[in-house]
Amino acid sequence: MSLLDRVNSPADIKSLSRDELRTLADEMRERLIDVCSRTGGHIGAGLGVVELTIALHYVFDTPRDHLVWDVGHQGYPHKMLTGRRDRFESLRTEGGLSGFLKRTESEYDTFGAGHAGTAISAGLGMATARDLTGLDFKVVSILGDGALTCGLSYEGLNNAGHSDRDFIVVLNDNEMSIAPNVGAMSKYLGSIQRNSLYNRVREKLGEMLENAPSKLQAVGHLVKRWEESVKNFLTPGVLFEELGLRYFGPIDGHDLDSLIETFTAVRELRTPRIVHVITQKGKGFPAGEHVEKWHALPPNHDPATGKQRKASSANPAYTAVFGKGLAELMEEDARIVAITGAMPSGTGTGIIAKSYPSRFFDVGIAEGHAVTFAAGMATGGIVPVCAIYSTFLQRAYDNVIHDVALQNLHVLFCMDRAGLVGEDGETHMGLYDIPYMLAVPNMTVTAPKDATEMLALLRTGVGHAGPFSVRYPRDAAPDLAPPMREVEPVQYGSWEVLHKGSEIAILAVGTMVRNAVEAAQTLAAEGLDVTVVNCRFLKPHDELTLNALLADHKVLVTVEEGVAINGFGAYIAAIVEKQEPAVRVIAHGVPDRIIYAASRAKQLAQTGLDAAGIAAKVRALHESEAVAG
Amino acid sequence: MSLLDRVNSPADIKSLSRDELRTLADEMRERLIDVCSRTGGHIGAGLGVVELTIALHYVFDTPRDHLVWDVGHQGYPHKMLTGRRDRFESLRTEGGLSGFLKRTESEYDTFGAGHAGTAISAGLGMATARDLTGLDFKVVSILGDGALTCGLSYEGLNNAGHSDRDFIVVLNDNEMSIAPNVGAMSKYLGSIQRNSLYNRVREKLGEMLENAPSKLQAVGHLVKRWEESVKNFLTPGVLFEELGLRYFGPIDGHDLDSLIETFTAVRELRTPRIVHVITQKGKGFPAGEHVEKWHALPPNHDPATGKQRKASSANPAYTAVFGKGLAELMEEDARIVAITGAMPSGTGTGIIAKSYPSRFFDVGIAEGHAVTFAAGMATGGIVPVCAIYSTFLQRAYDNVIHDVALQNLHVLFCMDRAGLVGEDGETHMGLYDIPYMLAVPNMTVTAPKDATEMLALLRTGVGHAGPFSVRYPRDAAPDLAPPMREVEPVQYGSWEVLHKGSEIAILAVGTMVRNAVEAAQTLAAEGLDVTVVNCRFLKPHDELTLNALLADHKVLVTVEEGVAINGFGAYIAAIVEKQEPAVRVIAHGVPDRIIYAASRAKQLAQTGLDAAGIAAKVRALHESEAVAG
Repeated sequence: MSLLDRVNSPADIKSLSRDELRTLADEMRERLIDVCSRTGGHIGAGLGVVELTIALHYVFDTPRDHLVWDVGHQGYPHKMLTGRRDRFESLRTEGGLSGFLKRTESEYDTFGAGHAGTAISAGLGMATARDLTGLDFKVVSILGDGALTCGLSYEGLNNAGHSDRDFIVVLNDNEMSIAPNVGAMSKYLGSIQRNSLYNRVREKLGEMLENAPSKLQAVGHLVKRWEESVKNFLTPGVLFEELGLRYFGPIDGHDLDSLIETFTAVRELRTPRIVHVITQKGKGFPAGEHVEKWHALPPNHDPATGKQRKASSANPAYTAVFGKGLAELMEEDARIVAITGAMPSGTGTGIIAKSYPSRFFDVGIAEGHAVTFAAGMATGGIVPVCAIYSTFLQRAYDNVIHDVALQNLHVLFCMDRAGLVGEDGETHMGLYDIPYMLAVPNMTVTAPKDATEMLALLRTGVGHAGPFSVRYPRDAAPDLAPPMREVEPVQYGSWEVLHKGSEIAILAVGTMVRNAVEAAQTLAAEGLDVTVVNCRFLKPHDELTLNALLADHKVLVTVEEGVAINGFGAYIAAIVEKQEPAVRVIAHGVPDRIIYAASRAKQLAQTGLDAAGIAAKVRALHESEAVAG
Repeated sequence: MSLLDRVNSPADIKSLSRDELRTLADEMRERLIDVCSRTGGHIGAGLGVVELTIALHYVFDTPRDHLVWDVGHQGYPHKMLTGRRDRFESLRTEGGLSGFLKRTESEYDTFGAGHAGTAISAGLGMATARDLTGLDFKVVSILGDGALTCGLSYEGLNNAGHSDRDFIVVLNDNEMSIAPNVGAMSKYLGSIQRNSLYNRVREKLGEMLENAPSKLQAVGHLVKRWEESVKNFLTPGVLFEELGLRYFGPIDGHDLDSLIETFTAVRELRTPRIVHVITQKGKGFPAGEHVEKWHALPPNHDPATGKQRKASSANPAYTAVFGKGLAELMEEDARIVAITGAMPSGTGTGIIAKSYPSRFFDVGIAEGHAVTFAAGMATGGIVPVCAIYSTFLQRAYDNVIHDVALQNLHVLFCMDRAGLVGEDGETHMGLYDIPYMLAVPNMTVTAPKDATEMLALLRTGVGHAGPFSVRYPRDAAPDLAPPMREVEPVQYGSWEVLHKGSEIAILAVGTMVRNAVEAAQTLAAEGLDVTVVNCRFLKPHDELTLNALLADHKVLVTVEEGVAINGFGAYIAAIVEKQEPAVRVIAHGVPDRIIYAASRAKQLAQTGLDAAGIAAKVRALHESEAVAG
């Protein structure tokens, strides 16, 4: 029996020797690689924090002491040590372990998180609640250096440093969050490792000694000794010290002894403090380390090569089509620039970084800045394309309204991962963008039925001088898109009637168009001939087409991959109510409950958004209308 | 003729002597106080930046060089110098000058802003657009130190410092944004003025010299000289320097000579740089300086005393009732804490800071942190009340969804300034919270009809273990609320039928209840007897009451003070459509366009949300129904 198989809770590691802990680390790493090569998942961060996780659970008294893992990508080794080892194969499957931390999954998961940058704020909240309720335990927030590009982390630090709470931040610095990090803070962290401030002082000292009076030159060796003592004072965490946190580090994050010693000492203090740990993301992964793609693996990878065993779909993903199409459009139109928030690969814009480095902006995990930065550029005649997941654009909602829409600036929002996101689970669902975008004045809201139409909408958006959004799913495209130069724009505000039936019309949005067509075919075979419309523009809608539909249909069923509450259906219903109250509008979408991890296909089926679900909905409506009629 | 009256554009100040510029400053300050005491407005920040504004327009070639004023509170003197002097009396009135900067108002207003923290991101965007289009001009973003509590500013700095753009940040440090600043950054800025790092080095040097070998002691005076040169290198802006910006300062912001000299020198450089200017907020205001209430004045103040000449309403504002009620509730229930984002006075929570300092948290302009911090506290059994304006909570939308709602944590959101906000204008409108809150799973959404019910809902929310929101307007309450101890909770999810009529029912939300009652009285006098319902719970709705209404009404008219698109009306329409499609639901709310500054009464009338507008809407519906029927 391996050591790992004997660890059922963190209590079991406290009696292990240092050598045994090192063996445990090796076993954990092996297990992680083995399981993730089958299940997929965010393996890179996990491999980097094996020793860190062991040290934290060894030194701290969890779950009484609270570990708050930022974003949760780092959480796999933590799950292994906290009684979830046996369920590890179920990672990121329906009913299985979450790919992130989750309060309902374990008492060791103190705070659920799928978005980066929340750990300091949440941890400070826990420490505050502890003090208010008179309890006594430690709170440790562990964040990747990528989280330091995020304004929320800074807001948390600014408040933590100002407080006198007993609160520990562990900065897991692997020099890349998902992609290599950007921004001055990242440079600063690098400089800590190179002791830059110290080196600058040293250089300055040397320079000054050279020009100093001879007497001072004579004591050069004494100055050197003094220099040593000033070194400890000055370096390396002055920035954090200035923000009010005591700084410890940098520490080798793969050296268990020094981790354990440092945490043991730091645990005893009572002021806000930060421990800076240097780790290697993906450490131990056979196919190589420090590679962006090891951030997360899709299922069925060969651990030896890192290659996927078989492609999950014949067609490229929307993401890839988008990146390629945008790059081609940028070749046509020099006004266009691309912006991503630490997601060059996730949004498909990585290739732009290579072709147009001066027109590509990875701003870090800083979606608010991404959008306001885009607004600033738009005032200068640039056409910025913000490639941000639907779920992450929630972080920039005020910037969308206040900086872009109220000033009617020409900024495009390309929202990948809109709709149900499969195994990524509830924190990453792109279910809210339709309601939150429809409510924004001046905003054009669109969704393509396939990859070709996505490119066409992109072209339309570049030609439309105002805020413009396009949403598309985490999925393979149903079609093979042509090169961008062959793609014509979609007529602004137009819908597309795909099939003309009678009585009932399905108004389908984006991904739902294909399912609606299939549903209509099923229904046609049953003798029910329904109309299918591709509502690629949600706002503004196609007035002519809608009026034509109102003239010869009794029921419109809207179908969208987003929350049914106040989505496109509600939007259209209000318009129809004003014009032709005799026509019913039925909104079909994701119900008002949290949707958990499962395959996307399963989620679509569960929410009645696959072809069968849509057909069933329409069939039921037809029957009730027949009865009513 | 005064100097000021001869300044029609910044070109006119370039020929003035230093003494004339100083006279101009005095005249501007006098005019500001005179006008604002009549019109109201954000006078404090403006008084603080008179010399700064003169110096910027004197040194920079505006509007070719771009000044980006953060939040715009500081923008009044800028407006005076840029051709808007004569229209100054129209400040914050309908069709008059905006209280903030506005691109459509002047070519000198490069970026509109009512929310703090956007200037660095927007300015960096402008500098980037300039470089991409091959132009050559300067971009200067001017922000208050309060903006540095905001994560967005940090995201901007992190990106600016990393870039090599020709870009200038001016930090207008008056040691208070609206209320005195909070957070470590604020402390740090204070320490710059006290030269803390330098002093620590100096102290350390002294200490080390004492213990140094005698030879080194002998050269003490030489070390002192060296110390001087190291001083320039080390202090005082190390934090900004570490973030990649060259630091200049601190400079006396009321000394025109040193401002002009510094800007002249700084203008010629070409890397990201920051100028730290120390100003006094409210400088020159007769009734006193550095007082929170001089942040903004309501109209009709006596400049000599700062006292308002007459109260604008007999009843206290919702804000005041909320603060007092919350304080009383905190006395009853030790679990409750209050959180504000730099708005103790604006949200009425200032009194809590005094009564319960350990249970009151002003986190700075950091709404995202406020909400995630609250979520962290909620995991520890604390019941946090986030008092954040509707418009500012847009900044924490992801935190509301991801950190609170998905984990179903017990956090209250008390949204002041929900609805039409009068003279504060479009950037501060609280029009989107109903759509954005309704779409969030687990969220309870409520709005009281008066101050007493607001307190009752607050009590209900404290007793309900999940996310709970209450919205109320920027207005005086229509009632005098009793002490909290006399206030009973509202039954969860219940509506209140205020008058039972027939055929048509008005489903009124919050502020609209009173107007709906009045409308119903008007209509009754005309022989039309309509039902009026107080829909204090928007979600979940009152199923029993709704079903009863559906049984004996043909039309439901929802009325809400928020965007009509996908608000409460759309929400109820979808519910009714499923149950009783024969009943029409008509949504009446703010139309899908930008609403500009005017009095709140005027805005309500414009959008058809006053009693007359509601009556007209219902009357028209009645007539069309009569025709149809």
